[in-house]
Amino acid sequence: MNRDCVFCKIVSGEIPSKKIYEDDTVYVFEDINPVTPIHWLFVPKKHLSGAGEITSENSDAVAKIFETAASLANEHAVGDYRIVTNCGKGAGQTVFHLHFHLLAGRQLGEMV
Amino acid sequence: MNRDCVFCKIVSGEIPSKKIYEDDTVYVFEDINPVTPIHWLFVPKKHLSGAGEITSENSDAVAKIFETAASLANEHAVGDYRIVTNCGKGAGQTVFHLHFHLLAGRQLGEMV
Repeated sequence: MNRDCVFCKIVSGEIPSKKIYEDDTVYVFEDINPVTPIHWLFVPKKHLSGAGEITSENSDAVAKIFETAASLANEHAVGDYRIVTNCGKGAGQTVFHLHFHLLAGRQLGEMV
Repeated sequence: MNRDCVFCKIVSGEIPSKKIYEDDTVYVFEDINPVTPIHWLFVPKKHLSGAGEITSENSDAVAKIFETAASLANEHAVGDYRIVTNCGKGAGQTVFHLHFHLLAGRQLGEMV
């Protein structure tokens, strides 16, 4: 856990969230500022600052996130969806704990 | 290989592409209709129709794609970047072979 990280505090329960799912590796919750009717965030419980830190040592968490996304999207019947991760401020990353946005619930527009 | 799939044909070399990288699992090439100055597509060589088909049986390819993206982004000094996968027509998916867009080279706008 990174003591200064808001997503680490959400994972630990120190900051409340609307939880969708949790297991040993992954925590899924509703984005507090949704841009689509369904807007979930998938984070690995272990702190990584972003997608640029993914290596063969930690990529099992990414695999688990995509397995979980497919499973939850089916279970919650979200329809078609987009999954996005932003790496760096210039890409729109604002919290420096690796996270994946699942966006659904309406026709989606451009990717950038 | 799916005989009707354009990305399977790109992976096999039947359709030419501007290749960025290739290994046993992953093929990376330039998008033919880029929406950003850098716009690469990452595909698993094994055909999956989209992110909804990701399970624990095949998610190792997704892990490898994200490892490769981090490595190539660093090697090519692309700066900040976004990675996107669209699942279903309503999300903007047009080729039904799982693929991840890496978008970089300028300030990126909204995610949808």
